[in-house]
Amino acid sequence: MVNTLYLPELREMLAENNKAELQEFCTALHPARTADFMDGLNAAEAWAVLQHTTPQVRAEIFHYFEHERQVEIIETQDRAAVATLIAELAPDDRVDTLNDVKPEIVAELLPLMPAAERRDIQRLSAYPEGTAGAMMTSEFARLSQTLTVRDALAELGRQAEQLETIYYIYVVDESQHLRGVVSARQLISAMRKPDTQIGQLMDTELITSRVLEDQEDVANKVARLDLLAIPVVDDERRIVGIITHDDVIDVVREEATEDAQRIAGVTPLEDSYLKTRLFTLSWKRGMWLTILFFTALFTASALRYYETRLAQWPWLIIFIPLVMSSGGNSGNQSATLIITAMTTGDVRLRDWLIVVWRELRVGLMLGGFLAVCGLAVSWLLTSDIPEVRLRPQSVLIVPLTLVLVVTCGALAGSLLPMFFKRLGLDPALMSNPFVAGLSDILAIVIYMNVALALLSLSG
Amino acid sequence: MVNTLYLPELREMLAENNKAELQEFCTALHPARTADFMDGLNAAEAWAVLQHTTPQVRAEIFHYFEHERQVEIIETQDRAAVATLIAELAPDDRVDTLNDVKPEIVAELLPLMPAAERRDIQRLSAYPEGTAGAMMTSEFARLSQTLTVRDALAELGRQAEQLETIYYIYVVDESQHLRGVVSARQLISAMRKPDTQIGQLMDTELITSRVLEDQEDVANKVARLDLLAIPVVDDERRIVGIITHDDVIDVVREEATEDAQRIAGVTPLEDSYLKTRLFTLSWKRGMWLTILFFTALFTASALRYYETRLAQWPWLIIFIPLVMSSGGNSGNQSATLIITAMTTGDVRLRDWLIVVWRELRVGLMLGGFLAVCGLAVSWLLTSDIPEVRLRPQSVLIVPLTLVLVVTCGALAGSLLPMFFKRLGLDPALMSNPFVAGLSDILAIVIYMNVALALLSLSG
Repeated sequence: MVNTLYLPELREMLAENNKAELQEFCTALHPARTADFMDGLNAAEAWAVLQHTTPQVRAEIFHYFEHERQVEIIETQDRAAVATLIAELAPDDRVDTLNDVKPEIVAELLPLMPAAERRDIQRLSAYPEGTAGAMMTSEFARLSQTLTVRDALAELGRQAEQLETIYYIYVVDESQHLRGVVSARQLISAMRKPDTQIGQLMDTELITSRVLEDQEDVANKVARLDLLAIPVVDDERRIVGIITHDDVIDVVREEATEDAQRIAGVTPLEDSYLKTRLFTLSWKRGMWLTILFFTALFTASALRYYETRLAQWPWLIIFIPLVMSSGGNSGNQSATLIITAMTTGDVRLRDWLIVVWRELRVGLMLGGFLAVCGLAVSWLLTSDIPEVRLRPQSVLIVPLTLVLVVTCGALAGSLLPMFFKRLGLDPALMSNPFVAGLSDILAIVIYMNVALALLSLSG
Repeated sequence: MVNTLYLPELREMLAENNKAELQEFCTALHPARTADFMDGLNAAEAWAVLQHTTPQVRAEIFHYFEHERQVEIIETQDRAAVATLIAELAPDDRVDTLNDVKPEIVAELLPLMPAAERRDIQRLSAYPEGTAGAMMTSEFARLSQTLTVRDALAELGRQAEQLETIYYIYVVDESQHLRGVVSARQLISAMRKPDTQIGQLMDTELITSRVLEDQEDVANKVARLDLLAIPVVDDERRIVGIITHDDVIDVVREEATEDAQRIAGVTPLEDSYLKTRLFTLSWKRGMWLTILFFTALFTASALRYYETRLAQWPWLIIFIPLVMSSGGNSGNQSATLIITAMTTGDVRLRDWLIVVWRELRVGLMLGGFLAVCGLAVSWLLTSDIPEVRLRPQSVLIVPLTLVLVVTCGALAGSLLPMFFKRLGLDPALMSNPFVAGLSDILAIVIYMNVALALLSLSG
């Protein structure tokens, strides 16, 4: 949100270099709100304001800036000061941001950072996008199992300042193998027995994620188990990082938005809608629009095939869009239900027979109901056409077609996403063009064949 | 997941009433995994297994059962034992579950519970579905601001056992007005100065949610600020509960799935796909399929209107599905992009002019590209038709139509969702039928008018 009301005052403070008021501004509110208030400032102004507070508060406010603004500040402001700021950010956030900074600027910034942070950035940015490794932070609370509760709390008090999450404390052996986990809640509850060793307290039945695991699977695990954080381990079960609940919310939201966009035939946008460049937006839509265009081309060929029949009974034409869209809508409903159910894990591939049997029955019910509407509509719209009067069975063409088309749509819409998933393809991405194309062709072929069969009865 | 491998052994333990092994089974694994292992048991068997552990572990495992199984157990098993179990569950979870238990059984269970729990259930279930009140839990850590860090930690140790979250501790005055918040991290960090009063430590710049606030807004706030929990206050700023991060993940996922289903013209399912009854599934799809059917009816009327013209140039028919689907797909893409961008807050109503201007340009780009494909296709498919040879300008009908139809689709797809949102309606729910209907009609009208205009040039 742009809080334009406060902007002139903020600019005035900057112009007057009013240190006291700028300091007050940086700390009076929650850092997220402070960031919101600075939304209307340009990158240089925002950076100038941030100079009036401590490195920690500066990093907190910076964390809530929009991604594009973060990148702009890093690329344009004083290298040494920016490097200090980056060193203060959470390890996972700074890697996300640096990913979009020009490589030559990153190369200039890295030598200006402390060696530990530099190595950490290089290590975290080595994991491919979309994996647990790319999502995790390398800062977490770890303790040795021989500590007592009293010592553990004291040690945690020392670690707390620099850590994102201290609510799970990971117990490791000397080579960083994960042995167990203790929650801060357990430690606080155990304060009455301060000499207990944390090895006795810890939970050894650990839920972990592997470093190359897909981020969607990690998110599902955390959501299912209501975890605050999940440890990430390498092949030798050494802990290399943790993924916290806030990153999981971001992934859940990101994946859901991407699914919706894929279902509608848009390659998922990386930035927000308004920030995406027009050419990128056109490309991500145009690609699928073109594929869908060539799928629809089959309908043109099908109609050319039936051209002479249509010339013979021209009134058949008026129902073509109706039967096509009914089949397409039915297929789109099924495909979306199955794709979202597979994303949340409600439907698995081995359920395919149950799904087909359900869709067959639902398709017949829906088709049956639309057939009743179709009968009425077809009677109303064609009763004045002489050829229809001559062949009263014509009025059954639309209803019969609707039953078949809606059922085929439901079956295609449910089977194709599972088929693509089985092939290892993304069902959300692949299903739409194929379901749309298949149901359109089926609609025309079914409609024309039903029509020809019924009309030839007395023909 | 049904872990069928272990089921026979579990049933054998039950048949032999092997107490030691059943006790071991209930505690050896993470409760979520234990629940998964029991997936294949019926409700009575699952309940029998749960009798072999402490009330706390029983409640933990029960928490991870699927919703339908929870309801079945509550409805069928011994009332007194079930009442004890319900009293152990987290306040927000038990209200969610009891909402689906038959009211007469709830009425039998309530008198069997301790008075405090009974009142709590009645209070929480009074808030309407979809509000912060219905999402919150009434158990949270609260302390008075005059306590010292040492006393606060000791008190927290006592409260920790029964609380879902102790990581934010809310500081209240004697009439439960919210004064501030201290994190467990701050308390642990401050252990070196144990005599500090928590009033000095606490953060008074609080982010709260109102009790009747929409759950989507609450989720957006928690996600934006990376909070672990958010306090819920009444009109007089008294704290009445908190909403924790795990419930926020559920809401984010639920809202995203619902959006995707609404965009595809399905009233959102309350249960998972496989658990939804066929009749319910058909109803939730049939309603929209029928609305879409009657929208498509306008296309039939439009085609009847142009019937004589189509009889005159029958080859025009073959491109009708192609131009209709191009317009529809373009509209569907825009609508989905705008709906998801409004859900995540990337696009707001006041951005409408920017959106229209973007969509106009994207629409022209996409339409222009499809026009090139359309020109080739139209030339290939119609070059052998004598009437087309006589009027070479005919080959321009499809390309020109495509530019106009794709652009109109993009504009309709972006404007309608914002228009419905402006009216206070759900854009995801309302847009699809209208965008589909509008773009279909526009496609036919534009196509026929472009055709008539071009063909009359030399006609």
